[in-house]
Amino acid sequence: MKEPDIPEETVERLVLYLRQLEKFYDEGKKSITSQQFAEKLPGINSHSLRKDLTYFGTYGKKGTGYDISRLIKELRSTLSLQATRKVALVGVGNLGTALLNYNEFGKWNFDITFAFDKDPELIGSEVGGVQVRDPRVMEKELRAEGVKMAIIAVPGDQAQVVAESLVSVAVEGILNFAPVLLDLPEEVRVVQLDIVSQLEKMDFYLER
Amino acid sequence: MKEPDIPEETVERLVLYLRQLEKFYDEGKKSITSQQFAEKLPGINSHSLRKDLTYFGTYGKKGTGYDISRLIKELRSTLSLQATRKVALVGVGNLGTALLNYNEFGKWNFDITFAFDKDPELIGSEVGGVQVRDPRVMEKELRAEGVKMAIIAVPGDQAQVVAESLVSVAVEGILNFAPVLLDLPEEVRVVQLDIVSQLEKMDFYLER
Repeated sequence: MKEPDIPEETVERLVLYLRQLEKFYDEGKKSITSQQFAEKLPGINSHSLRKDLTYFGTYGKKGTGYDISRLIKELRSTLSLQATRKVALVGVGNLGTALLNYNEFGKWNFDITFAFDKDPELIGSEVGGVQVRDPRVMEKELRAEGVKMAIIAVPGDQAQVVAESLVSVAVEGILNFAPVLLDLPEEVRVVQLDIVSQLEKMDFYLER
Repeated sequence: MKEPDIPEETVERLVLYLRQLEKFYDEGKKSITSQQFAEKLPGINSHSLRKDLTYFGTYGKKGTGYDISRLIKELRSTLSLQATRKVALVGVGNLGTALLNYNEFGKWNFDITFAFDKDPELIGSEVGGVQVRDPRVMEKELRAEGVKMAIIAVPGDQAQVVAESLVSVAVEGILNFAPVLLDLPEEVRVVQLDIVSQLEKMDFYLER
C-alpha cells in the first residue's frame, strides 16, 4: 500500500466524511467549502477537516471548496471500497435475518455471500436471497472462497466458539453483535457492535 | 451527581469492564486480580485498569484481587444502571423487529416501551410483546411517559425527520441505526450505530 500509516481515529473520521459527502451528493450539491462541510460534522472543526483531507493529497479550491464527487471517489479509493468484499454471517435469528435483508450492504460493496445457522429448520432455506447452510460445512466453504470478514449474530453464550472456528478458517475481521467480549489472537480485528453497551454509554451521559 | 467528571473513553472502558466481569461471574469466578482481568481486555494493561478502578474508589486486595460481584455492583451504580429506563423505537422493519425480540435489553434494565411505524398494516399489531403505534401519537405518548431515549431504525432518507420529531418531544439521547449522519442540536446525544461504516473500517485495516 502506498498510503502513509493512518491513525485509527482518522479512519473513523474518513468514514464519517464519506457518509456526509454521499448525503451532499444525494441532495444535489456539487461542491462544498470546508466550513460548510465541518458544520455538519459534530465535534469536527474546519481546520482539522482540511488537515485530514490534505493528508491524502486532496485540496479544496479557494471560494468554491471541494468537488464532492471527486472527493467521494478519492475517499472510497483510500478506504479500499472499490471491489466487492465477501462477508459470512453466522446466526440467522432475528438480527441475522435483519442483516440479510438489509439493502445497504450491496450499496457499499459488501456482499453477505454465506449464512450459517445450526437450526435444522433453517438450513437449506433462503433468507434475503442467501441460502442458510449448516455450520459444519463452514470451514470448507469459507476457505474455498477466501472469505476474510464475518459477522457474528449468535447468542452471547455461543459467540466465543463461533469466533474461534471462524479464526481457524482464516477469517481476519469479525463484527460481533453478541453482548460478550471475544478472546481471540491479537492479529484478528474485532469490532464490537454491542447495542446494549451503546445504550448504557448514552444513558450514563443523560443521567449527568 | 457526586462522581467527578469522567472522560468519555473511561466510560467506554467501564462498560467493557462490566461486560467482562459479568462473563467472569457467569463462569462462577468469585474474585480476579487486575492482571488476570486485563489479559481478557484487548489493548488494556493491568496498570491502566487499576487506575480506572481506583478512580471510583475501588481497590483490589493484594493476592486475591477484586471481589467480582461487588465490583459489578459498583460499576452498575456508577453507570446508573440500577433503574429501568424506558426507550422508544421508531421503525419496525427487519431491524426494528430484531430489536423488539432481543432479550438482552431487559437484562440490562432497558425497556423498549414504545414502538412506532407508519405502516398501517403494522399499527396495532404486537411485535416482541410491544404494541406498534402510529407515529402521529408519538408526541403525546412520549411526553406523558417522559421517555428520554430513542432508537431510530428507519431507512436512511427518513432518519433526519424522525430524529427531529423525537427531539421536539424532549428525547435527549438517540441511538441511530440509519446509515446517515443526523443534524441535531448539540445538546442531543447521538450514538451512531452504522453497521456498514464498521465493516468499512474493518475492511480498511484488513487491506493493509
